[in-house]
Amino acid sequence: MLELLPMQVDAGSVATSINYVWVLTVTFLIFFMHAGFAMLEAGQVRSKNVANQLTKNMLTWSVGVIMFFLVGATVEAVIAGVTTGGNYSLFAIFSPESTLGWVDWLFGAVFAMTAATIVSGAVAGRMKLRAYVTYTIFLAGVIYPVVTGLTWAGGALDAFGFHDFAGGMIVHGMGGIAGLTAAAIVGPRLDRFNDDGSANVIPGHSITFAVLGTLILCFGWYGFNVGTAAAPIAGDATALADFGYVGRVALTTTLGMAAGALGAAGVATLKTGKVDTLYVANGMLAGLVGITSNTDIITWWAALVIGGLAGAQLPIVFELVEKYLKIDDVCAVFPVHGSAGVLGALLVGIPIFTVPGAGVSLVNQVVFVAVIAGWTILATALVFGVLKAMGQIRVSREHELDGLDVSEHGVDTYPEFGRPDTATDGGVPSGRLKTDGGVDEEEVN
Amino acid sequence: MLELLPMQVDAGSVATSINYVWVLTVTFLIFFMHAGFAMLEAGQVRSKNVANQLTKNMLTWSVGVIMFFLVGATVEAVIAGVTTGGNYSLFAIFSPESTLGWVDWLFGAVFAMTAATIVSGAVAGRMKLRAYVTYTIFLAGVIYPVVTGLTWAGGALDAFGFHDFAGGMIVHGMGGIAGLTAAAIVGPRLDRFNDDGSANVIPGHSITFAVLGTLILCFGWYGFNVGTAAAPIAGDATALADFGYVGRVALTTTLGMAAGALGAAGVATLKTGKVDTLYVANGMLAGLVGITSNTDIITWWAALVIGGLAGAQLPIVFELVEKYLKIDDVCAVFPVHGSAGVLGALLVGIPIFTVPGAGVSLVNQVVFVAVIAGWTILATALVFGVLKAMGQIRVSREHELDGLDVSEHGVDTYPEFGRPDTATDGGVPSGRLKTDGGVDEEEVN
Amino acid sequence: MLELLPMQVDAGSVATSINYVWVLTVTFLIFFMHAGFAMLEAGQVRSKNVANQLTKNMLTWSVGVIMFFLVGATVEAVIAGVTTGGNYSLFAIFSPESTLGWVDWLFGAVFAMTAATIVSGAVAGRMKLRAYVTYTIFLAGVIYPVVTGLTWAGGALDAFGFHDFAGGMIVHGMGGIAGLTAAAIVGPRLDRFNDDGSANVIPGHSITFAVLGTLILCFGWYGFNVGTAAAPIAGDATALADFGYVGRVALTTTLGMAAGALGAAGVATLKTGKVDTLYVANGMLAGLVGITSNTDIITWWAALVIGGLAGAQLPIVFELVEKYLKIDDVCAVFPVHGSAGVLGALLVGIPIFTVPGAGVSLVNQVVFVAVIAGWTILATALVFGVLKAMGQIRVSREHELDGLDVSEHGVDTYPEFGRPDTATDGGVPSGRLKTDGGVDEEEVN
Repeated sequence: MLELLPMQVDAGSVATSINYVWVLTVTFLIFFMHAGFAMLEAGQVRSKNVANQLTKNMLTWSVGVIMFFLVGATVEAVIAGVTTGGNYSLFAIFSPESTLGWVDWLFGAVFAMTAATIVSGAVAGRMKLRAYVTYTIFLAGVIYPVVTGLTWAGGALDAFGFHDFAGGMIVHGMGGIAGLTAAAIVGPRLDRFNDDGSANVIPGHSITFAVLGTLILCFGWYGFNVGTAAAPIAGDATALADFGYVGRVALTTTLGMAAGALGAAGVATLKTGKVDTLYVANGMLAGLVGITSNTDIITWWAALVIGGLAGAQLPIVFELVEKYLKIDDVCAVFPVHGSAGVLGALLVGIPIFTVPGAGVSLVNQVVFVAVIAGWTILATALVFGVLKAMGQIRVSREHELDGLDVSEHGVDTYPEFGRPDTATDGGVPSGRLKTDGGVDEEEVN
Repeated sequence: MLELLPMQVDAGSVATSINYVWVLTVTFLIFFMHAGFAMLEAGQVRSKNVANQLTKNMLTWSVGVIMFFLVGATVEAVIAGVTTGGNYSLFAIFSPESTLGWVDWLFGAVFAMTAATIVSGAVAGRMKLRAYVTYTIFLAGVIYPVVTGLTWAGGALDAFGFHDFAGGMIVHGMGGIAGLTAAAIVGPRLDRFNDDGSANVIPGHSITFAVLGTLILCFGWYGFNVGTAAAPIAGDATALADFGYVGRVALTTTLGMAAGALGAAGVATLKTGKVDTLYVANGMLAGLVGITSNTDIITWWAALVIGGLAGAQLPIVFELVEKYLKIDDVCAVFPVHGSAGVLGALLVGIPIFTVPGAGVSLVNQVVFVAVIAGWTILATALVFGVLKAMGQIRVSREHELDGLDVSEHGVDTYPEFGRPDTATDGGVPSGRLKTDGGVDEEEVN
Repeated sequence: MLELLPMQVDAGSVATSINYVWVLTVTFLIFFMHAGFAMLEAGQVRSKNVANQLTKNMLTWSVGVIMFFLVGATVEAVIAGVTTGGNYSLFAIFSPESTLGWVDWLFGAVFAMTAATIVSGAVAGRMKLRAYVTYTIFLAGVIYPVVTGLTWAGGALDAFGFHDFAGGMIVHGMGGIAGLTAAAIVGPRLDRFNDDGSANVIPGHSITFAVLGTLILCFGWYGFNVGTAAAPIAGDATALADFGYVGRVALTTTLGMAAGALGAAGVATLKTGKVDTLYVANGMLAGLVGITSNTDIITWWAALVIGGLAGAQLPIVFELVEKYLKIDDVCAVFPVHGSAGVLGALLVGIPIFTVPGAGVSLVNQVVFVAVIAGWTILATALVFGVLKAMGQIRVSREHELDGLDVSEHGVDTYPEFGRPDTATDGGVPSGRLKTDGGVDEEEVN
């Protein structure tokens, strides 16, 4: 069985099959993050808006990948080409031939859809489905491809020099900033803020689903980070390719995640005296976001520091957004993905955190972050601004009170639960439908 | 560290280890689809029948794999041998030696169990557990192995010629048709249809679990489809083996899934004016089923068309089954797996959808579909017909009213929720127990 | 594209990339078992304690991996060295250089965290969070590393000779025994046992989450068991390495899981006449635990026998623990992980179950099990004994009545559900908060 036939071994085939086994495996893991986002966001919204959140999640993928295939891939190539004065090949992706390049496209698509789906968590509970889907079309077709065209695909910023290993800024920072922009434009949910400017907490309907989503995301994140350390072997099978530093990525991803949980839990406990479950969960994610741009070149103790800071800033930034910006970022996507992504992309520019020879320029990182953030805010504000001007961004007050599940989808997520049908509500058929807007004090709790 | 020792490389070992790393990874992903089916089905049944659905799911796997090992693998080999006049080796699977052939058996087993578990979604809420388990024994031991014996294992249909890449018809079509047959024989749930023939909607208890299950299934489906594009490399490591077209499979699987969601959502929205969450979810699955038999040879735009059609037929076929056949297919397994599987297996016979040189015969596909469907209906009707004649197919009216969780398993899935215990029910301890059969109008809602 | 360049193939790189693609994939799967434990345990506790269970789960990982990195890895190396009179290299893990050894560390860490998280299921609903976290620090830093130092890392027991392939005893047995010890010391939940010594059943809040967790665990277990059959290929790529027996591991893992479900379901049905859903679920896990130490060397029929026995003992041992030891092991972690792990580790010492030439000594297995169990009980009792003496182990009666979610975390897992707020409760704001301790009879049900 074990014949020694070295002369017949095809080096290219060996390398290709090893590399694609790896890239496909991690691509599937990153796809599964979509289930994580779905559960995380569903758990953090009111029960009357759960099906809406889930529908947006599924449509983000379904509409998004088609747009990213039909338009986005070409836009990315064009942006990369024109900003460097180089060439670009249009429509190569539409080849009739089978091509392993489609695997690479799918690997890119799962990153793109991660950025897209982050936005839905910020605007939960009051945005029209058609407005959200419209934005997804632009994000997958243009906004995100411009970002990757400028960067990973070899465009102007790439020539300029920056470091973002697996998308801490390009994917997560971009998604978090887009989410904050969208939430600012659509406005807060009814009763989220009082007339005196103080904020009400509107708790999500299931911490269990939120934590499940968190753990699915952590699972997929190993694909996201460690997977980006592909391909394992050089194309001619003569050497390990990018795989030599996979150990560092595996370690710093793990430590960053852990430190993020402790950072967020620590600060939250300092503020309230209790260990808030959702801060622990979102802290793991913020820690991961914080090290995603730099996981390949930071030291193990820097992973603890950066991950810990990314977690620690979460309760603080969330409060700043709520108290000072008065923006209703329902699932905390800005502190988890936005500010944590920016933080990590900047800290990698400080030499003390990186291994010798990393040579990342803090100035370049600042420019890189500023360009991505500026473009994201601009493009997102433009799309939602037009939708708002057309009166197409937000559901009616009645629909928001009823919940988007009933008003936009005609469904009830949990038809057997949560309907006390208390007669004291005075004619409203279900107490659950009245959780936001004009409710009595005790029903908000 | 990087020594150049090409003369000592064992080509067979390199190829075997690459191929088995891949086949094991995708086998695990396909196994995980069991969790997807469990959540999808649990979410679509009443809360009083959830534990029953989950138990059937776990017993499908537990009873099924043992039967598929002890009996099914041998039946498959015998059917493949006798229908082609060839030989077959009995009992090879029971070797005392360690064998990598067991990995191949497990790869086959996870497909077999997918077919088996589909049935449970159609007959939810009224079938006796022992009847379901009895059928699973026959399905895993005989019914499905006959199908694969005739086809993938090299039997008569394989010699005849047909194309079913990853089981769009052999696994999903077969399971969906078996489910419809079983649902027809066991009869509808109480109150599912009124005396005048009109249908009542009995909504599932949790859209969240249903969507979670959908996304787990989509995740596993990448293993199902892309994994079937194994092995990556030829056994002597001289060339990429089946891996060259993996890019096409990855792309068309993705586009088919996305188009299925849009097709189902589009038709459902045309009918009701709202985007039904469960149609979006089941549409993703129907799109996947539609392209599973042909994902390796269709063009990218054909994936959009076939996936879209497989999604679009879902709301229509579901209504046909309900309104005209009066069959209570609880989880819509026929439109999602059955008709979508048949559709995909037939459309691949139309040359315009396939890449040049595919050479699939529509006539052969029709014969292939007809033989699988005929055998599945016949065998399923025989098993359940005998059980029905023995009075062993259906729980009593009282047990159905109480719910199968209490009557068959002695458990309450959610003991702290959903029990208003309203005294107005008149002696019935829990309002939730009365959701089907003789309930007041408002309690069905 | 397919050039034949065998002379340039680097054998070491080929082997390294194949092996690390495999070990990383299975490491991620084993990490995902954390989500499985979270859901399994959350489903089996009262709704007032769900967030606490989830928080403990996330902190187990977050605190645990940091401790296992900073302290545990070194302790493991020291114990392995000193018990064999050999050397050990301190602090090698803190290398500033990138190293693939960190992948191996992570592979070890996911096993360590599995052992750690098992404990939380036993002590649910009444232990202080700080006590649990303190124990996790010791477990990850010292208790578990001593076990692996003595065994897999090459210490005294390894020199002595024993067989535990993937941690049936080292991970699961250890975790289950630690859980039982901890549950004994912290004492039962309020109202778990009556004054006359009889036991009350306090059902978990969601069978759906429990079964979801079970199926996630089964998915991850394929990584746990089959993954331990790494590395696929020898370091110089001249031969399959440990991969030849992977077929046996895949088969016996599958059959052991299935037989465990049938064993537990069978015994439970004999006792009550009904097929208990949670016994089927936990039976799958017990079957897996039973074969985890021996999956590489048992025959296929032995997998059915050992898995079946591991399942069958589950309802019996659970009752023994409850009725005679009066220990409140909330999630049945001792019968599922502890006694099933011990059973499997002992049965592999009986030659009839193993393939020819396995040569496992029953005497050595008994000593091995006794040493691990003794150390685990001793160390666990010491940590919790000190905490108890300091009055730091258990929440107050009021906090337990309120539920740990409110008292320890300040959150309500399901703020929209399960609160009938019936005025008849007499001043207690929520009926759900009164499920344990001084409740009326009907509220326990």
